[in-house]
Amino acid sequence: MSANTADVDAETDPTNVHIAVIGGGSRDWGNKLLKDLALTTEIAGEVSLYDLDQESAELNARLGRTLLAADEATGEWEYTVKSDLGRTLDGADFVIISVQDPPSETFKHDLDIPKEYGIYQSVGDTVGPGGTLRGLRAVPTFTGFAAAIRDHCPEAWVINYTNPMTVCTRALYEEFPAINAFGVCHEVYGTQRYLAELVAKHLNVERPARSEIDVNIKGINHFTWLDEIRWNGHDLFEVIDEELAAQQPLPHLEPGALSDEGTYVDRCQITLDLYRRFGIFPAAGDRHLAEFVPWYLEDEPRLHCWGIRLTPSETRTNKWPKGDRSRRERINGERELDLSPSSEETVQQLKALLGFDSEFKTNVNLPNRGQVATLPHGPVVETNAVLGADSLKPVTAGSLPRGVRNLVSTHVENQETIIEAGVTGDIDLGFQAFLNDPLVTVDMESARAMFAELVETERKYLTAYDLDDSAVLADSR
Amino acid sequence: MSANTADVDAETDPTNVHIAVIGGGSRDWGNKLLKDLALTTEIAGEVSLYDLDQESAELNARLGRTLLAADEATGEWEYTVKSDLGRTLDGADFVIISVQDPPSETFKHDLDIPKEYGIYQSVGDTVGPGGTLRGLRAVPTFTGFAAAIRDHCPEAWVINYTNPMTVCTRALYEEFPAINAFGVCHEVYGTQRYLAELVAKHLNVERPARSEIDVNIKGINHFTWLDEIRWNGHDLFEVIDEELAAQQPLPHLEPGALSDEGTYVDRCQITLDLYRRFGIFPAAGDRHLAEFVPWYLEDEPRLHCWGIRLTPSETRTNKWPKGDRSRRERINGERELDLSPSSEETVQQLKALLGFDSEFKTNVNLPNRGQVATLPHGPVVETNAVLGADSLKPVTAGSLPRGVRNLVSTHVENQETIIEAGVTGDIDLGFQAFLNDPLVTVDMESARAMFAELVETERKYLTAYDLDDSAVLADSR
Amino acid sequence: MSANTADVDAETDPTNVHIAVIGGGSRDWGNKLLKDLALTTEIAGEVSLYDLDQESAELNARLGRTLLAADEATGEWEYTVKSDLGRTLDGADFVIISVQDPPSETFKHDLDIPKEYGIYQSVGDTVGPGGTLRGLRAVPTFTGFAAAIRDHCPEAWVINYTNPMTVCTRALYEEFPAINAFGVCHEVYGTQRYLAELVAKHLNVERPARSEIDVNIKGINHFTWLDEIRWNGHDLFEVIDEELAAQQPLPHLEPGALSDEGTYVDRCQITLDLYRRFGIFPAAGDRHLAEFVPWYLEDEPRLHCWGIRLTPSETRTNKWPKGDRSRRERINGERELDLSPSSEETVQQLKALLGFDSEFKTNVNLPNRGQVATLPHGPVVETNAVLGADSLKPVTAGSLPRGVRNLVSTHVENQETIIEAGVTGDIDLGFQAFLNDPLVTVDMESARAMFAELVETERKYLTAYDLDDSAVLADSR
Amino acid sequence: MSANTADVDAETDPTNVHIAVIGGGSRDWGNKLLKDLALTTEIAGEVSLYDLDQESAELNARLGRTLLAADEATGEWEYTVKSDLGRTLDGADFVIISVQDPPSETFKHDLDIPKEYGIYQSVGDTVGPGGTLRGLRAVPTFTGFAAAIRDHCPEAWVINYTNPMTVCTRALYEEFPAINAFGVCHEVYGTQRYLAELVAKHLNVERPARSEIDVNIKGINHFTWLDEIRWNGHDLFEVIDEELAAQQPLPHLEPGALSDEGTYVDRCQITLDLYRRFGIFPAAGDRHLAEFVPWYLEDEPRLHCWGIRLTPSETRTNKWPKGDRSRRERINGERELDLSPSSEETVQQLKALLGFDSEFKTNVNLPNRGQVATLPHGPVVETNAVLGADSLKPVTAGSLPRGVRNLVSTHVENQETIIEAGVTGDIDLGFQAFLNDPLVTVDMESARAMFAELVETERKYLTAYDLDDSAVLADSR
Repeated sequence: MSANTADVDAETDPTNVHIAVIGGGSRDWGNKLLKDLALTTEIAGEVSLYDLDQESAELNARLGRTLLAADEATGEWEYTVKSDLGRTLDGADFVIISVQDPPSETFKHDLDIPKEYGIYQSVGDTVGPGGTLRGLRAVPTFTGFAAAIRDHCPEAWVINYTNPMTVCTRALYEEFPAINAFGVCHEVYGTQRYLAELVAKHLNVERPARSEIDVNIKGINHFTWLDEIRWNGHDLFEVIDEELAAQQPLPHLEPGALSDEGTYVDRCQITLDLYRRFGIFPAAGDRHLAEFVPWYLEDEPRLHCWGIRLTPSETRTNKWPKGDRSRRERINGERELDLSPSSEETVQQLKALLGFDSEFKTNVNLPNRGQVATLPHGPVVETNAVLGADSLKPVTAGSLPRGVRNLVSTHVENQETIIEAGVTGDIDLGFQAFLNDPLVTVDMESARAMFAELVETERKYLTAYDLDDSAVLADSR
Repeated sequence: MSANTADVDAETDPTNVHIAVIGGGSRDWGNKLLKDLALTTEIAGEVSLYDLDQESAELNARLGRTLLAADEATGEWEYTVKSDLGRTLDGADFVIISVQDPPSETFKHDLDIPKEYGIYQSVGDTVGPGGTLRGLRAVPTFTGFAAAIRDHCPEAWVINYTNPMTVCTRALYEEFPAINAFGVCHEVYGTQRYLAELVAKHLNVERPARSEIDVNIKGINHFTWLDEIRWNGHDLFEVIDEELAAQQPLPHLEPGALSDEGTYVDRCQITLDLYRRFGIFPAAGDRHLAEFVPWYLEDEPRLHCWGIRLTPSETRTNKWPKGDRSRRERINGERELDLSPSSEETVQQLKALLGFDSEFKTNVNLPNRGQVATLPHGPVVETNAVLGADSLKPVTAGSLPRGVRNLVSTHVENQETIIEAGVTGDIDLGFQAFLNDPLVTVDMESARAMFAELVETERKYLTAYDLDDSAVLADSR
Repeated sequence: MSANTADVDAETDPTNVHIAVIGGGSRDWGNKLLKDLALTTEIAGEVSLYDLDQESAELNARLGRTLLAADEATGEWEYTVKSDLGRTLDGADFVIISVQDPPSETFKHDLDIPKEYGIYQSVGDTVGPGGTLRGLRAVPTFTGFAAAIRDHCPEAWVINYTNPMTVCTRALYEEFPAINAFGVCHEVYGTQRYLAELVAKHLNVERPARSEIDVNIKGINHFTWLDEIRWNGHDLFEVIDEELAAQQPLPHLEPGALSDEGTYVDRCQITLDLYRRFGIFPAAGDRHLAEFVPWYLEDEPRLHCWGIRLTPSETRTNKWPKGDRSRRERINGERELDLSPSSEETVQQLKALLGFDSEFKTNVNLPNRGQVATLPHGPVVETNAVLGADSLKPVTAGSLPRGVRNLVSTHVENQETIIEAGVTGDIDLGFQAFLNDPLVTVDMESARAMFAELVETERKYLTAYDLDDSAVLADSR
Repeated sequence: MSANTADVDAETDPTNVHIAVIGGGSRDWGNKLLKDLALTTEIAGEVSLYDLDQESAELNARLGRTLLAADEATGEWEYTVKSDLGRTLDGADFVIISVQDPPSETFKHDLDIPKEYGIYQSVGDTVGPGGTLRGLRAVPTFTGFAAAIRDHCPEAWVINYTNPMTVCTRALYEEFPAINAFGVCHEVYGTQRYLAELVAKHLNVERPARSEIDVNIKGINHFTWLDEIRWNGHDLFEVIDEELAAQQPLPHLEPGALSDEGTYVDRCQITLDLYRRFGIFPAAGDRHLAEFVPWYLEDEPRLHCWGIRLTPSETRTNKWPKGDRSRRERINGERELDLSPSSEETVQQLKALLGFDSEFKTNVNLPNRGQVATLPHGPVVETNAVLGADSLKPVTAGSLPRGVRNLVSTHVENQETIIEAGVTGDIDLGFQAFLNDPLVTVDMESARAMFAELVETERKYLTAYDLDDSAVLADSR
């Protein structure tokens, strides 16, 4: 199945690959990409950066060039910043999407307003009140991207890194069903790393690479599940059961135990608890898992006892200024460049799609067309897929056990409702999704008031919705 | 389609119909049936009463004979009490099931224990922690009934009146897929009566009979929905919208407003609220609707503002003694017999199945085989069906709108999980259903403790489960 | 469920019903309708006739008035002929569709050309080469009707009587998914009459009315199947088995035995043969059934031995002149008017939809939305449905046994292919349907030549197709 | 994803692999396997041969040892012949199934009897009258194998090479749903080789290896289809269209043109013809494709014009004696051993499942669980799958276009009918499948007679069926 691309006129010249980046000013994914591109071999070409915050895109272009100039750099890429989306996309072989509304005007409120109503969110970017608002904001943006891709580079491979992953990727397909898009998230890698640690601990071997942990994945992004886990001929469920037995009874942390630890602490307590209750292993960090069900986020002390902490909204609003400073310092030589490869797979994926190396199995987000049995076709799910020359095919992962399917389906339906709300501009449909979210366990009137407050506060980012016609909002005036 | 049964050797002789009643000591449904049988014409025969509480069955037999002896009585039936289930069923043309575990040992705890954990249930017999336990208790009982029916009267028509309706009816089909069983509930009739009142109020006509309100029904028992409502050429959604506009804003009741009203007060506030949020009309009492979603039962004061009250557990435990007294008094002539027909349809249904009168459309509970589109086939749903001579066929009702389908599907999956738990004896599967119930919004550890306490308290009624092997219960020891 | 329409302002005034007839010059269905309208009570109004052959519509208007003037007539209707489709439909409460291309330019070739290639068709209007061509011609016509209905009377009830029933009805929904359309065919009535005869013969009673034979119907028009058949408490499969045993072995007719009988002879031999092979009872005349499978129409002598005859194409081309003569003679008083009611249900259906009498179960053709389990949703199927005030709901009929489902599915897929061909104008898709028809068992090259000849001959009626771009037709030039 | 198997206690020791061969006397697949095992490196172990014809198994054991003794041989295997199926399977890591009833008593009649009724079969082992009989014979045999595997080596990987591939593989799952079985066929490889030839011809490059032709496969065995075909960045549909244009018009062979060519001649004429009519590329030899549709096998002259010939039944009956002679000669040194690797993938698959090398994509036959959208779940389909360490997951291949889905579904339903016939012993269900086969276009009475004659002739191999109770067979006595 490997394809040697050297001899005849293949469709894409690997030495002249055109990558368009929507959200080209991205501080997080963007920087990882710049590093990994500086380390490429075999492929080269042009990277067009597009961002509403053009200044940030310029900063990335400068950083990218700085990295390419380093001694260790092997990549050859030309960075340009474009002010027009269409021109960014013209001739693109790949489109990478990584965008975010300004956290201080959106993400901050997504976290703080629900908190006033007694709803705690450990991340707030996928589901829950915050994730729902973020999804409602994203749909019109992403259908717009898809329309531009259809017009300017309909054959391009489109990789989305933006959250809420499921809604954003699904919105692309809603607008342009023939798009070659998929969503990529590193959350499963973290679970593989945790499993690799358990292998080392319980099998007395050296910790294997995370990619050696072979898993059968199914579910939706940040709420994926594993029912087959193997390493080197071993069924790792035996290893997990040993670990679980050693930790019984969960939860074992004293309230306050984590007060000195960082925001992103994760002791895999919720992972293990969900596993022992549902018999299938969750594959996402506890901070994400906690938000898909109503049992772990009652209040802050209880969060601690499950080994996680809330992400304060300042962590989110501080991220941009910190990222800007870091980039400038690296450009100016005031800070080490750090050219170690990121743990992301982007370049590996580009090369596989260009026909380099052999085919490659990894987890991606794609509309279900059978890969997850007993979930409807159409909604975006996360499973393994085979990436090869100009080809991406999800692998059939079977069905989820009924108890977990019940949990997952709630969000699948909600995410489809958010898509419909965004496409029709009907904010009251958005409220149906909001109400149906498992974290929204407050009284109907509080739910309505909280939704109305969020919508009013983020009104500027919801211009695609007909807010004046809303029955839900009308009640509150 | 009418079938005249007089001339040739039809299968069932209408003057010698054999009705077997499982739960023949029933105080509630039983009494209604006794009255209605006293008023039959055209059909007659034998009624066999079976009950674990044989004394109560004897009381019903005596009451039944007393009623038949009244002047107004037209029915001709012979009542016998049987001590053996199989002999009760031998030769039965119809089986009626209406059973209940002693409320003081079960229902009481189903309500009181969750209350200690902060979970309020307005009824507690269908979903929620109480409904889940009741379902778990019912599955082995009802698979037992189905096995006996298969052995003794496999062709009989079986009508179930027992709650939780969906789980009980589904359990019959799980054991004996060819059973001719259906579930009957009068909850929709109440909604029709409410709609008839709105007709009178807004169209300035006399209040029509509830059966004149033509509705398209779909959903699951106690959580059914109407998307077509017509009376005499009128689309009643216009009438509902007028009523809703007149009542805006909901909720309008002061806390404490209902303190002097009876337990079963229902102002249709939750009905109207769900309608305005989801655009489809719920067809069950507010006390039932409130339990399927997490937005109305936060605490007692808030319940009041939606116009309903909690049913105290004493109401349930008092029901049996009160019912016994009432029956004895009527038998002894100390209390009026009251031979007015009940508002139930049982006799009308028996006669339709025997081929009398023309075919007849009404709402029933049956395994989905297409009547509700986009729900899976197999689980029990409630829709209209056509009843005729030896025939019952559900009418296609279309699909639910996505927002409501999301709410309904959660319970469909849960009820299937309860069935699987009951059939396999796996109480930990039962805990999965318990956790996935929308009312169970407490912390995981509280949920586990509450479940364990309920199971321990009702242990006597859960002998079909392997409680010693339970991981969930083990934690608490 | 009966609705009394007298007292308040219902939507349609029953004394001023507006019926639009597309194909208002129809000689066959048209005449039956004129008779039945002359006999109505309770409803009255206006009938607008539209036909490409306006002269024929005028003839029907005159005949209609003549019938209304008869002594026995009770109906009160005003007949008008309209030259514009839109104006015909304006304000219509009901639309009746019964159209046909001139047989001498279409139907004749549908029969005669395949015969040259060795393919015999007993009817040729539903499936087979002739039915396929007829379907391809019909799709653009019927999407045009649906578009006009959407523009002029979107709420009207639309009854289609035109063949191919499935394709024509499906085309209406393809263009206007919210249309209130259904297809009506009397073929099942014939089977009910045959079964009534068997009742009389084997149960020694007087022949019951055909409507007393209660059946569970499923399949597609002219290829419907019964798996429940009851009369007055009797399971009629016992009666059918007696008849089958008496007639064994089938086929028992000598070649030539039918040479003196009429074209439409039908001895139910194919019906019984399919029943004994597949265990479910077909509900259509043998002349129709024979065309859906490849086993009965090998050649003319063999047809005879199954008790049917071919319909010569002259029978079809003669029908119009004969019908015209008959109408003129009745108008001129040269022929008896014959005001006996037809055996059709049209007026009964109109009255039920207007809310007269109680609800009413009958067989209709509608897009599958669950009424036939295990067939896809969308394609038109035939089952029972409940007709009531402004409401029509198919009854769930369950699934077909696998062997018959296999036969039926082939035609379901073909009919969907014909729809897609007609909507996209892609005649080569039409050839895929043609090839996949079970009667097309000839060599690929003969199939192609036959199709090309049919298309060329009927080119005038296929203007909606892009014939110049066809790869299939190109081969033959 | 590669897994290094060297360091810890993996489940299977690669140097002590146990392979059980059911049909261990196989002359065709058996010999290929013996050669390929003689050439293995890295894996080694024991091969147990089981065959009803034990003498033939002994011959294979001797030949296997002879091959291992050759200079070029690298493999290390111990061959044993077992007389008991259970003992053959005990401890097996892999089970290979390749069995056949004696051709002179079965295959011969499968071909010759239908020919008398005018039905020509180019192969006769998959569908058509012959394939149907072969399927009916196989079901009880294969459910027996599955039961033995469940008892003796439930975790083993089972590879079936026996035809009819779909029915045999499906029968294994019918008996033992948790079996790790898949079916392997080399027919797609032939299409890849043909496509490699077209690459060389039209792109002016050297002929690539067949494994470089990357295809998306879907359908059922011997009737699979390709909708994506790529080589080295090229979309090969352009190449195919060039070839088709060059060959127009098909068919171009004169009757008799092939009289001097071998039996297995294949000019890909039917492949190209189906492609131009249905727009998707068939991936099986023309001799197989011709049997799934009724358009190519009318009579012998017409076969010739499509570039194929009938396989005479003597070719089949001669195969065993020829195979025996060849084996003996090689064992005795009278014939060259020929140790070139076969073109089969068996050893590559075994090694992948044992965790050697990286994962590996190839086409296999497995129950559909979503890999082919819009076909039902359960029936066996053929698609690509990913083979890795102890893991086999089909890749989602999407849906077939409607025209082809119609053709494929007919056989899917038929194959399920054959399974049901075999499991229930109901030969009359088998006749339903026989009738529904597209090649059975004869009159119903001929079909019945042909079926009865086949069943009577092969009665010895149909002992699992209740032939005395058959209505179909009764007619003929």
